[in-house]
Amino acid sequence: MLEQGGAVSQEKILYKKGERLWTKEEFTERLKEVGHSFYHDKHPFHTAMHQGKLSREQIRGWVANRYYYQKSVPIKDAAILSNLPSRELRREWIGRIIDHDGTQAEEGGIEAWLQLGEAVGLSREEVVREDRVVPSVRFSVDAYVHFARTKPWIEAVASSLTELFSPDLISKRIKVLERLYPWIDSAGMDYFQNRLTQAPQDSDIALKLVLIYCQTPEDQRRAVEALRFKCDVLWAQLDAIEKAYPLKSD
Amino acid sequence: MLEQGGAVSQEKILYKKGERLWTKEEFTERLKEVGHSFYHDKHPFHTAMHQGKLSREQIRGWVANRYYYQKSVPIKDAAILSNLPSRELRREWIGRIIDHDGTQAEEGGIEAWLQLGEAVGLSREEVVREDRVVPSVRFSVDAYVHFARTKPWIEAVASSLTELFSPDLISKRIKVLERLYPWIDSAGMDYFQNRLTQAPQDSDIALKLVLIYCQTPEDQRRAVEALRFKCDVLWAQLDAIEKAYPLKSD
Repeated sequence: MLEQGGAVSQEKILYKKGERLWTKEEFTERLKEVGHSFYHDKHPFHTAMHQGKLSREQIRGWVANRYYYQKSVPIKDAAILSNLPSRELRREWIGRIIDHDGTQAEEGGIEAWLQLGEAVGLSREEVVREDRVVPSVRFSVDAYVHFARTKPWIEAVASSLTELFSPDLISKRIKVLERLYPWIDSAGMDYFQNRLTQAPQDSDIALKLVLIYCQTPEDQRRAVEALRFKCDVLWAQLDAIEKAYPLKSD
Repeated sequence: MLEQGGAVSQEKILYKKGERLWTKEEFTERLKEVGHSFYHDKHPFHTAMHQGKLSREQIRGWVANRYYYQKSVPIKDAAILSNLPSRELRREWIGRIIDHDGTQAEEGGIEAWLQLGEAVGLSREEVVREDRVVPSVRFSVDAYVHFARTKPWIEAVASSLTELFSPDLISKRIKVLERLYPWIDSAGMDYFQNRLTQAPQDSDIALKLVLIYCQTPEDQRRAVEALRFKCDVLWAQLDAIEKAYPLKSD
């Protein structure tokens, strides 16, 4: 599934056992290397999106499928919340759920994603009914929720660190969608605009926790693996979306 | 464990299968009957407390053990949150977690319970270390958290309905503690004062959900069983506390 250049040798570095404890700088660097190699910004479907090559149907398929991920994020975060060992940690985490679910006063990320759906020409009802969501998208997202429920909380926190890499991708995406897909109603961009400020705040907290609570080489290795797992979750979604909405060969 | 008058015949009524769907009024009445028969206000330890018969050590033992329950409540509620099927439902539930954990601006129920600990002469450190928490208190509370994690969400919601009965008990308790245990610093009463307004709001929402989402006789029966289970959880805690801090015979 993940046939990228350098992936195998990268893995050897990442998963070698018996290493000494990395310094915080080395550990942060290892985490960032995971993103550099495996984050879904390099997936062919994203590459095609950012080159303006996707059809309306492909954009719609991506938005409709990705809804299943969006709606599962607060479920995942509530699972992590329930596994956090103190109220101080829960206080730092609970805002993520509110960001996605919203409040009576202010709608959140799920609503913003539904508005993106409308902006690309999907009815709210068909997105919510999940008509277009393909099984492999469901399976990968469900695997992520299951991971958050069942793994030690610090690994679940580490798995969220793809947010270290998302602001770069999202800021490019906003420009790409506006310039290369002018038929998309710009009212649908709120989700991405909001994530530009939310994601760095979230990843600051998550990285702080991972650096504090991973105290052994094994902890550090597992955090790196958790982040790699999360990259796989995102990558697998795009694989499934590409399969359902194939790219044209050049 | 639950040797109360009428318990056996009550159970026969509650658990008889094949019944027709209860009306909302009948269903609410069945739920209230569970509280009438099995809520822990009738436990000998609470009876003795409300008669002013507990020693300082017994009050301290109760507060110190009950801390384990208090600290587990937001964990339980986050588990329910993670099982709720929509953002609308999560929005209604998330406030419970904030009530207990607090925010940077306002401390919550766990902090208030620690202040109650100080008011009865326990250091914050010994409460947090859980020195006095006896295994059976841990087991019963852990059973409650496990129930919330693993049962259908509506049963977990139903199990929270002991809050239908808590305002009566708590309003009596505030007066009892102030009058019969004047050595307790009144600054420790905030937890109970806050619950007098929070519990009715919480039980209103939970009862509304249970009445809406329990659509078959089997659903209704399970909701009643869930509430009975929760009563057992509370009762078992007092059994364990009474065993560790025995009541004097009259």
